[in-house]
Amino acid sequence: MGGTSVGSVERIGAIAERIKDQVNGGFNKIAVVVSAMSGETNRLVDLVRQINPQASAKNYDMAVSAGEQVSAALMAAALERVGIKSRGFLAYQLGLKTDSLHSKARIHSIDTAKISDAWEEGLIPVIAGFQGVTDEMEITTLGRGGSDTSAVALAVALGAGFCEINTDVDGVFTADPRYVEGAHLAELMDFEVALEMASLGSKVLHCRCVELGAKYNMPIVVRNTFTKNDHRRTKIMSFSEEQKLEAPVVSGITLDRNIARVAVSGFGYGSGIISGMFERIAKLGINVDIIVHNRSNDDSPMRIGFTIAKIDTDQSVDCLKSWAKEMELNDLAIEVEDKLAKVSAVGLGMQSHSGVASRTFSVLAEAGIEIHMISTSEIKISMVVEESYADKAAQILHDTFVVPKSN
Amino acid sequence: MGGTSVGSVERIGAIAERIKDQVNGGFNKIAVVVSAMSGETNRLVDLVRQINPQASAKNYDMAVSAGEQVSAALMAAALERVGIKSRGFLAYQLGLKTDSLHSKARIHSIDTAKISDAWEEGLIPVIAGFQGVTDEMEITTLGRGGSDTSAVALAVALGAGFCEINTDVDGVFTADPRYVEGAHLAELMDFEVALEMASLGSKVLHCRCVELGAKYNMPIVVRNTFTKNDHRRTKIMSFSEEQKLEAPVVSGITLDRNIARVAVSGFGYGSGIISGMFERIAKLGINVDIIVHNRSNDDSPMRIGFTIAKIDTDQSVDCLKSWAKEMELNDLAIEVEDKLAKVSAVGLGMQSHSGVASRTFSVLAEAGIEIHMISTSEIKISMVVEESYADKAAQILHDTFVVPKSN
Repeated sequence: MGGTSVGSVERIGAIAERIKDQVNGGFNKIAVVVSAMSGETNRLVDLVRQINPQASAKNYDMAVSAGEQVSAALMAAALERVGIKSRGFLAYQLGLKTDSLHSKARIHSIDTAKISDAWEEGLIPVIAGFQGVTDEMEITTLGRGGSDTSAVALAVALGAGFCEINTDVDGVFTADPRYVEGAHLAELMDFEVALEMASLGSKVLHCRCVELGAKYNMPIVVRNTFTKNDHRRTKIMSFSEEQKLEAPVVSGITLDRNIARVAVSGFGYGSGIISGMFERIAKLGINVDIIVHNRSNDDSPMRIGFTIAKIDTDQSVDCLKSWAKEMELNDLAIEVEDKLAKVSAVGLGMQSHSGVASRTFSVLAEAGIEIHMISTSEIKISMVVEESYADKAAQILHDTFVVPKSN
Repeated sequence: MGGTSVGSVERIGAIAERIKDQVNGGFNKIAVVVSAMSGETNRLVDLVRQINPQASAKNYDMAVSAGEQVSAALMAAALERVGIKSRGFLAYQLGLKTDSLHSKARIHSIDTAKISDAWEEGLIPVIAGFQGVTDEMEITTLGRGGSDTSAVALAVALGAGFCEINTDVDGVFTADPRYVEGAHLAELMDFEVALEMASLGSKVLHCRCVELGAKYNMPIVVRNTFTKNDHRRTKIMSFSEEQKLEAPVVSGITLDRNIARVAVSGFGYGSGIISGMFERIAKLGINVDIIVHNRSNDDSPMRIGFTIAKIDTDQSVDCLKSWAKEMELNDLAIEVEDKLAKVSAVGLGMQSHSGVASRTFSVLAEAGIEIHMISTSEIKISMVVEESYADKAAQILHDTFVVPKSN
């Protein structure tokens, strides 16, 4: 059972060879899920936007789902080339049903009968990822990273032993090795940690894919398409209690440069004002991440700061301005700071090891890095710092907390 | 009701504007059929061939049908942009059923209920051309020119008044205006003539599309996407008896440079030898066009010549060689001549006007052009000439037979 990132003709060939090895190794019930070829989904999104930036979601989904259709057919053809009978399957052919939230649909059900039939016929089925159909047989898409989500969902539906994701990196690293010296592959990872890392900016996995794996306890193996070494990979799974106790305090450091901070001040305290403001922003589909609200006593001025994705800045500011106008908040001041980054440390061991937060503050302070905002949960600590210090902060946190690779 | 060649983003926009004009002009039951964007199908075919030149037809069809899916979604989005509610439809969504001859499937049935539903909802449906599904819901394609065929088939199923094909030329010309001076648009054309011209190398229309129009008497209007003048077009229809009588002796001159002649000699007369040879070639799916078999008496040596598409030459020669070996025809000689072209004159009036053939021979002879092979039917005469004389021959025939445009 594998999800597959199908970047190029060479990559498709390499994956066909790997599947051939698996088949020869005795795996006969393999289902392959493919993403679009590298750059293809972006090309399709650009075409739709050129023609109509406000295209309806139904038409948008029909266009952007075509990339996976092509990949599924090409992957099946590549398997045929190495002597394996194979056929491509689209969502409607499998009854891969979703809700009708176009462009961010969620899978409801998968009819696995077609896949069993394919296996009966001695075929390896190749399924177009990212796409689904509504009960009305309209095409939906699952959002970015949707092919990985399709793969995990299918693995669950089929009761697979694990879901293998072949991609262009070796797995999940303790930090981005392009920026952090000593970053290394995390060979085993608990779902909870993987989920935090995905949501905090690690590019390898998407949240919904990991969420689904966690929900159904479906192990996810992330590996490089071109790797021959089966042990060089990250296996994401549910840790046993014992494994949890032995887990490192910090498993990984993530860095998200794509944030902006908005500070709003100049309004008085009033029931529902703040919740009204965030409701407005939420209605635009904009995710607010860290919120900091410092107010020492009832008489001090209101000032609230929050972070959003950089791309949402203009829309958020416009929204706040029109909200202020409606609410007659004439003194409202909005400041935007977008030269920031969020550095986070994630680890199961933070639950049992106290002092991670204070140690974090002290090592960053020693390096002269100012912390603008902080947010913590049981297994992570996130800090907003100046973007120019981001790499340095990540390196310091990695040096301080992440256990060096033994071998 | 329109079939549409969707070459580029600009073209999609232009067609959306035209449909808007038609809707504003009172046409409310329009169904749009689209082809892939220019170059897209070739790109997909190349991808499949790179990965597996022997890909199964099912996987091939799944890959190459993706271009029309994208076009349908983009065209629907373009209509939305000009204020017209629209949605893309794929073959499986419409129940556009075909036989299971992948890559050259024929349409069996179209369920028009979905289109009626779309009209009820005030939507203009945009249908992906070129594709169909089998009863097992597997994707098929109709072969080159398939989108035009889809459009005519849908027009028939819907009982449309006509099928309009928006393309990159103004219509069907009396000859290719790039090579023949004085060539002009044929404004009206009988199905029979259009069919001959399509099969003889006129690039504008594909045979199956015209065949279908003829079979169901569905008028086909061919026009340029960017034309504003509604009278500048070719309307292909069933001529009345009176129209047939008034039709020009010759409606058009076509030129096909894509031919090769194979001459086979050195075998004796024997029952079934010649038919066996052509059966072998037919099994490869190669079309044999003109066959010339000159044999003055029982004792003269056998020599048979036939024309095929240039691309089929190598395969045909290999086939003949292995056939000769099996048949122990050790003296068999095969000659190939591929610097030839086929020039044809087509016209309903040839049925009632005798002397076209003899006049043809004399005007070509006067110009010193040798005729290598001849083939005639009730409404056409085809001659194989040296390729270097092809343009000249076409010009002479056009000057001799085609009525100059009156306006």
